[in-house]
Amino acid sequence: MNTNFKLKHLLGIRELSADQIVHLLDTAETFRDVSKREIKKVPALRGRTVINLFFEPSTRTRTSFEIAAKRLSADAVNISVSTSSVSKGETLLDTARNLEAMAPDCIVIRHSAAGAPYHLARVCNAAIVNAGDGAHEHPTQALLDALTIREHKHRLERLKVAIIGDILHSRVARSNIYLLTKLGASVSVAGPGTLVPPEFAGLVEQGVRLERTIAEAIAGADVVMILRIQRERQTDAFFPSMREYAVHYGLHLSELSLAAPDAIVMHPGPMNRGIEVSSEIADGGRSLILDQVTNGVAVRMAVLYLLAGVGQEADESNKGNGASLPESRAGGGVRGRTRTSKRGTRN
Amino acid sequence: MNTNFKLKHLLGIRELSADQIVHLLDTAETFRDVSKREIKKVPALRGRTVINLFFEPSTRTRTSFEIAAKRLSADAVNISVSTSSVSKGETLLDTARNLEAMAPDCIVIRHSAAGAPYHLARVCNAAIVNAGDGAHEHPTQALLDALTIREHKHRLERLKVAIIGDILHSRVARSNIYLLTKLGASVSVAGPGTLVPPEFAGLVEQGVRLERTIAEAIAGADVVMILRIQRERQTDAFFPSMREYAVHYGLHLSELSLAAPDAIVMHPGPMNRGIEVSSEIADGGRSLILDQVTNGVAVRMAVLYLLAGVGQEADESNKGNGASLPESRAGGGVRGRTRTSKRGTRN
Amino acid sequence: MNTNFKLKHLLGIRELSADQIVHLLDTAETFRDVSKREIKKVPALRGRTVINLFFEPSTRTRTSFEIAAKRLSADAVNISVSTSSVSKGETLLDTARNLEAMAPDCIVIRHSAAGAPYHLARVCNAAIVNAGDGAHEHPTQALLDALTIREHKHRLERLKVAIIGDILHSRVARSNIYLLTKLGASVSVAGPGTLVPPEFAGLVEQGVRLERTIAEAIAGADVVMILRIQRERQTDAFFPSMREYAVHYGLHLSELSLAAPDAIVMHPGPMNRGIEVSSEIADGGRSLILDQVTNGVAVRMAVLYLLAGVGQEADESNKGNGASLPESRAGGGVRGRTRTSKRGTRN
Repeated sequence: MNTNFKLKHLLGIRELSADQIVHLLDTAETFRDVSKREIKKVPALRGRTVINLFFEPSTRTRTSFEIAAKRLSADAVNISVSTSSVSKGETLLDTARNLEAMAPDCIVIRHSAAGAPYHLARVCNAAIVNAGDGAHEHPTQALLDALTIREHKHRLERLKVAIIGDILHSRVARSNIYLLTKLGASVSVAGPGTLVPPEFAGLVEQGVRLERTIAEAIAGADVVMILRIQRERQTDAFFPSMREYAVHYGLHLSELSLAAPDAIVMHPGPMNRGIEVSSEIADGGRSLILDQVTNGVAVRMAVLYLLAGVGQEADESNKGNGASLPESRAGGGVRGRTRTSKRGTRN
Repeated sequence: MNTNFKLKHLLGIRELSADQIVHLLDTAETFRDVSKREIKKVPALRGRTVINLFFEPSTRTRTSFEIAAKRLSADAVNISVSTSSVSKGETLLDTARNLEAMAPDCIVIRHSAAGAPYHLARVCNAAIVNAGDGAHEHPTQALLDALTIREHKHRLERLKVAIIGDILHSRVARSNIYLLTKLGASVSVAGPGTLVPPEFAGLVEQGVRLERTIAEAIAGADVVMILRIQRERQTDAFFPSMREYAVHYGLHLSELSLAAPDAIVMHPGPMNRGIEVSSEIADGGRSLILDQVTNGVAVRMAVLYLLAGVGQEADESNKGNGASLPESRAGGGVRGRTRTSKRGTRN
Repeated sequence: MNTNFKLKHLLGIRELSADQIVHLLDTAETFRDVSKREIKKVPALRGRTVINLFFEPSTRTRTSFEIAAKRLSADAVNISVSTSSVSKGETLLDTARNLEAMAPDCIVIRHSAAGAPYHLARVCNAAIVNAGDGAHEHPTQALLDALTIREHKHRLERLKVAIIGDILHSRVARSNIYLLTKLGASVSVAGPGTLVPPEFAGLVEQGVRLERTIAEAIAGADVVMILRIQRERQTDAFFPSMREYAVHYGLHLSELSLAAPDAIVMHPGPMNRGIEVSSEIADGGRSLILDQVTNGVAVRMAVLYLLAGVGQEADESNKGNGASLPESRAGGGVRGRTRTSKRGTRN
């Protein structure tokens, strides 16, 4: 489909073209099957090294990337950087340069500072994957959300998507808004006033409407995305209490009834049950929350494959080395950059 | 031997039949050899994913499971859940459901709450292995203890086993009592009064005698199991001081002389030398403490193999996929459940 | 070259002969190429288990060893021992004996106590690799430094090497001094008076000169090694302030101009930019800081290969099992000890 997929890093959705997004989703679809097999492993990234560099704790995203890397036969190395080792005085760029000198093929980074992955991309030959940077972007989350929507709605174009909650702090919201609008969906957002400041409107692309109430945002929606209240990030009191949030901005069946009859519900996890979402909805038939997690592995396999793998055209001599897609569908269209030629000329 | 081994999870010894226990031990015996080879690896679980989900710190048990998984060629993923991430507000069941959505074949869980693995088993298709739940059970410890006894005594039937120490807090004691009585051994227990409350007698199966002194419990014993004083768990003062415990309930050569002349000594580790056991005994010729650790890897390989592997009958098309035992002995008798058919219908 | 390489453990440089050092460096050179390939993996240690046992936090060294092990196809198991689990009361030797009972081929240990790896070597059949013990030795760092110097200067003999900084706390300095003097380089050291105590002179081998100023040490040097100020170790005030240290003992271009015109600059990392080294130098054309990191992986591959692998002579039946060097150069000369014969007689 996309014979010109050129992507060195995955830093944010904002930088991607619609074609690139679709190609990532198509590739992810081909990998979804791998995790359903008995032997959940393909040799695509054998002998490649993927470093998970997490400056913020994350069980879920790190595990998803690690499982994705291992199912591709890559060597996965986890680095969890606590405050203590940062206090050793090394800068982020020095940490990155040092890891780079160990010749990883991909560095997956999560960092509390927006823009951290961009810094890394400037100094690294390794493919950089943003696994969440501050309140900025979380591109693989948006991709797995899109894959989930596409799986159930068979399209993204002309869907109405409502995003509810803590938009201000949400890299998930930001990445989703970029992706959904690029692919032709319309997006409505609603949340407590303090969490969806007026200035936010200016930040997003065309096609996003700010609504004052959940009801207005959800009305007629095909997809309802609930954001997580990030209690650990809220040093200021953005709203009076969790209880109050639950009453006014938590999603209950009464609100959900305003959406389209076949509306689906999503949440990036981890959930605060009874706060931003009621258990009836989380565990109900419309909830795709666990499908999102399943698709997360597939999306991350696709991202690692496309960025850390070696396309066939790039180096014809690699044929038969295992760096091929699990099935023919995407096989013809994958064009990873060749990183090998650069290796060895570092610094 | 046991052509009808059906076990979806390993939650506790209490639920197992004597036949199932013997089959687990027989299988473990066939795996013991793998770790003595130069190339300590069999392809049995290639392409399977084993998640070690530890809510309590544990160097030893986690390492044992991880090594077992890797020697079976499984992909092992470690998740160490600290209090900080629990404070993100996700329930245990949601954590489990989310991991399950990443299609692991087995989740090994350690948790401070008794019963936690049972909760997981209700919502997961993945095989759940209890690696210690509160003061409830620690089934692989009991299995490795039994394997060690069988290795040296060539039977469990009619052996006299003394268990000494902190019975109240000990999941090790509980699992061992279930196992030993099921397999025909007789068990005597002794410990400080506060640590072996009278009610405990009602909890255990037939064949367990509560003795008031170490001397009475050890008299004539073939096996002396010393429990670990879990100093980190004792918020209340169950006994006046460590020193007092060492004098009255620590095992010394004088007490050990009351046991059978060929008695063996065991301890689940980590040891508090000079408290519950003297160094003379720990390092002496009767101590099998390190054999227990060695057998721990074999037992965990057997458990993972039987639960996460795919039996040959279950799916004939899997022949030759590597999911076969390392030698012929157990090869004919292994019947794992087929989990593949369920996969994909999750949720 | 060295057909008699016998080394069971790598505890320190002090114990090595010049021949053994050269053989390690030659072997490392053959492995350097592996990390430049697209498929960065050789089967040399397939089925071997390498345990990284770190009692001190270390992102860099642990990652380097882990990547080295994985590129050799070994199973790598990380154990990070925090204070909490040490408080469980187990001694270091018991921890080691327990790990040993799980049949690892190699235990890589970092510990804050000088001599800890030597303790382990006394009770373990597994090869012990010292990854830094207190202020004592850090042998793989010295080896990677030597490999880097040799790569650029094509020899070590008769080179003049200046080591600048926190000599008192530096296991890096100690290991480098042993290595460099054994291989015929001359070494000058300089640092704040409190950090290079007069007694230090007595500790080192012949060929080390204590200079009072950086200028004197650097004058005419072919290699300038800057040590890291280990701020986290300095409980006492060895010098008035970081700022003062930077002025008097930080390396700037003005001092570096005193070295040989083609002098190279090294630093073991992590760097305190602007303190012990200026950014102009760290990022300048003479800096080999990232080459050191790259060579670190190669050196650790060589060490693991030579210690955890099985030499061809040791067991002729192993031919073709993958335990062979990646290229012919070192292939004829590698003689690992045979550890297999000991295995099984543990305890």
